[in-house]
Amino acid sequence: MAKQETLKATPPRGTRDFLPEEAALRDWACEKIKATYREHGFTPIETPALENIKLLKRGEGGENLQLIFEILKRGEKLEKAMSGNGQEPELSDLGLRFDLTVPLVRYYSNNANDLPIPFKAVQIGNVWRAERPQKGRFRQFTQCDIDIIGLKSNFAELDLLNASSRALLALGLDGFTIRINDRRYLQDIARYCGFAEESWERVFIAIDKLDKIGLDGVKTELLQENPGQEKAVEKLGEIFLSTDELRSDTTISGSEQIEKMRGLLPDTESKELLDELSALIAAIDHNAEGYRIVFDPTLVRGMGYYTGPIFEISVPGYSFSVAGGGRYDRMIEKLLGREVPACGFSIGFERIITILQDRNFSAPDRPALTALVYDPARDSLEAVMQAFKNLKEQGHKATLVPRRKDLKKQLDQLKEQNISKFCLFRGEPDNLEIKDLS
Amino acid sequence: MAKQETLKATPPRGTRDFLPEEAALRDWACEKIKATYREHGFTPIETPALENIKLLKRGEGGENLQLIFEILKRGEKLEKAMSGNGQEPELSDLGLRFDLTVPLVRYYSNNANDLPIPFKAVQIGNVWRAERPQKGRFRQFTQCDIDIIGLKSNFAELDLLNASSRALLALGLDGFTIRINDRRYLQDIARYCGFAEESWERVFIAIDKLDKIGLDGVKTELLQENPGQEKAVEKLGEIFLSTDELRSDTTISGSEQIEKMRGLLPDTESKELLDELSALIAAIDHNAEGYRIVFDPTLVRGMGYYTGPIFEISVPGYSFSVAGGGRYDRMIEKLLGREVPACGFSIGFERIITILQDRNFSAPDRPALTALVYDPARDSLEAVMQAFKNLKEQGHKATLVPRRKDLKKQLDQLKEQNISKFCLFRGEPDNLEIKDLS
Repeated sequence: MAKQETLKATPPRGTRDFLPEEAALRDWACEKIKATYREHGFTPIETPALENIKLLKRGEGGENLQLIFEILKRGEKLEKAMSGNGQEPELSDLGLRFDLTVPLVRYYSNNANDLPIPFKAVQIGNVWRAERPQKGRFRQFTQCDIDIIGLKSNFAELDLLNASSRALLALGLDGFTIRINDRRYLQDIARYCGFAEESWERVFIAIDKLDKIGLDGVKTELLQENPGQEKAVEKLGEIFLSTDELRSDTTISGSEQIEKMRGLLPDTESKELLDELSALIAAIDHNAEGYRIVFDPTLVRGMGYYTGPIFEISVPGYSFSVAGGGRYDRMIEKLLGREVPACGFSIGFERIITILQDRNFSAPDRPALTALVYDPARDSLEAVMQAFKNLKEQGHKATLVPRRKDLKKQLDQLKEQNISKFCLFRGEPDNLEIKDLS
Repeated sequence: MAKQETLKATPPRGTRDFLPEEAALRDWACEKIKATYREHGFTPIETPALENIKLLKRGEGGENLQLIFEILKRGEKLEKAMSGNGQEPELSDLGLRFDLTVPLVRYYSNNANDLPIPFKAVQIGNVWRAERPQKGRFRQFTQCDIDIIGLKSNFAELDLLNASSRALLALGLDGFTIRINDRRYLQDIARYCGFAEESWERVFIAIDKLDKIGLDGVKTELLQENPGQEKAVEKLGEIFLSTDELRSDTTISGSEQIEKMRGLLPDTESKELLDELSALIAAIDHNAEGYRIVFDPTLVRGMGYYTGPIFEISVPGYSFSVAGGGRYDRMIEKLLGREVPACGFSIGFERIITILQDRNFSAPDRPALTALVYDPARDSLEAVMQAFKNLKEQGHKATLVPRRKDLKKQLDQLKEQNISKFCLFRGEPDNLEIKDLS
């Protein structure tokens, strides 16, 4: 038989192998987040990685719909699709999920009778997007979502923001800022400025770029997309400019900030909306320790499905947000025909890991092990096993390690593997000398 | 716009939604297994769900190669494949992994320079197979593998069997039996009986059915596949028949059993092999508490890639095995051109969950919560938040729960949600009355 070609050992483009240290950090962070949410009454759930392609394409996933990894049909189904009547063949009926929200909505519809009202869920899992790979973008990555389904009041937002803040604190991240806005308020502003309703979504997309391209950039883009709307664009620019200073003032509390901000904002129809936001901000502000919450009338969030409050969390020193979410009261109805209010929040797991790695943080709760170093060529299985048992009985977390030629080098390497003690086995299970590795 | 069709809410065929209680059990079991392996020096690793299709098809996955979920190519690549020169188009270049062994082997080759020697890895993750769905068979399921790469001696087997036994004990499963055999010994037996070498794999496949179809069934199948080999079949039958009693004798230890068994077995070339097996059995046997290990010369294991010792674990009352593995010294070389010894063991996660559920086991370490029951229509966000904070400071794990109309029914339901105490909020954060739910 001809020798087979040797295959590439790298993982597929845009995906990653996690080496032991990074895998341990990811495990630790995942458990920490899940434990915090569990303590706040969020219930872990699990849905499959595969969903029916029709459901995925129905989701208001925006750009993500273009990035679905589709699963090839099999057997007869594939043959039938390929021998189609000249039309574009439908080659797949399943796809990999691109987020955890669409699966959650399907899960809720499928299992509502068995779930409490409201339903507070936490789901941590991988999602897949056929992105063009680039720094910090992957084709498989972990999302970490909490959602409250079936609660229309802002207590849902309060619960999500409070629990998520505590999850971030549990990871050692403090000093973060929650920014909050409301999609309905953005609409009011757009209406007030004079933009036609059909242009609002495009106006929001332009506003969303404020951090990246600045106010002048946003105005240029708005003018290009709304020719003849100079007045509306000018009005919007003035509103944002007037709030600029307050938005970035870290010396006042969120409650003070929204009160001052309201003095600068135009008298839109949103008085009650802003009253509600003020109350939410005050409730968090007065109980926050180690983080802040501020009103940010320029906050948009990308997805089109939001219907009410929206929020993001940013960490000092990083331009990206580490978490975000909002209310999406219409989505369950649109997908599945039942009207159910819902509100969700997602921690950007990969971004959290990036920050923890930048800070040289390593998972703290790995067990400190004792290496039982034996000689495979000399020692008997039974004697080593007996020694192992004795170490266990003495309270050691023992790991079996075969002795290598260069013992000094080997001991140096063991130190890097979370091993704190070692015992050179000398053939006598009842006579074990344990030394520190440090 | 026309109203869109309402979609099915069930998960794709052969996949599952996990309700809170089952998800909690799975989480708990997964963490328990991982923690036990970690304490024995096995390092968690993570590989992507997607692998290059060429690698997957190179693996000696047997039937599993027919069950790969393939990912449809995209954009230009797909167009190019579809407009091919009349040949069968190659529509995919990626696939979902069908086990964790092929990814591990690729991972090791990709990262060997950064990994210790030997490398002791634990990997828990989902795999996908396009099986025809049936009871206990799923298209997405969790595997839980440990492997030791780079260690030729039987200390690898000892380590795997010891750590896995302790993982099962940690899950509350005891009374299990490890059965062990060696692929080389099976070959010796087949040679001794007079089967031609090219028929051995088929002989083993027949022997593998012993539990299901009995000795007579195996003999019939062997005769059909090896016409004219009556003598060989008869010889094999006699060997197995003679060991039948000893194989099922639970009154003697594994060490005694293999010694007695050896007296019944023919004098093959395998003396040293059986010496090795005896030593491995003795090492485990003399230190086992709560489980047994026995030699089983009829054990085959399905996969063709095993090269040495093979083992399975069975639990009383269940016909399926809950774990299995063996040595596969040639696989890394075959896949990737480098010769590296390897030995692995896989716990059947789904089967463990089935057994735990049969025993009405529920995850024990979920936090006992205190429900702060507020009235969304009456209470202010801030007062509830202050009450929440007070409960936290008193050491409660508080969860926010909106009051429903039928309070009595609601409290009954809370009991089922891991909530042990409740506090009916009456508008006064500093005056909270906490009651037991039981």
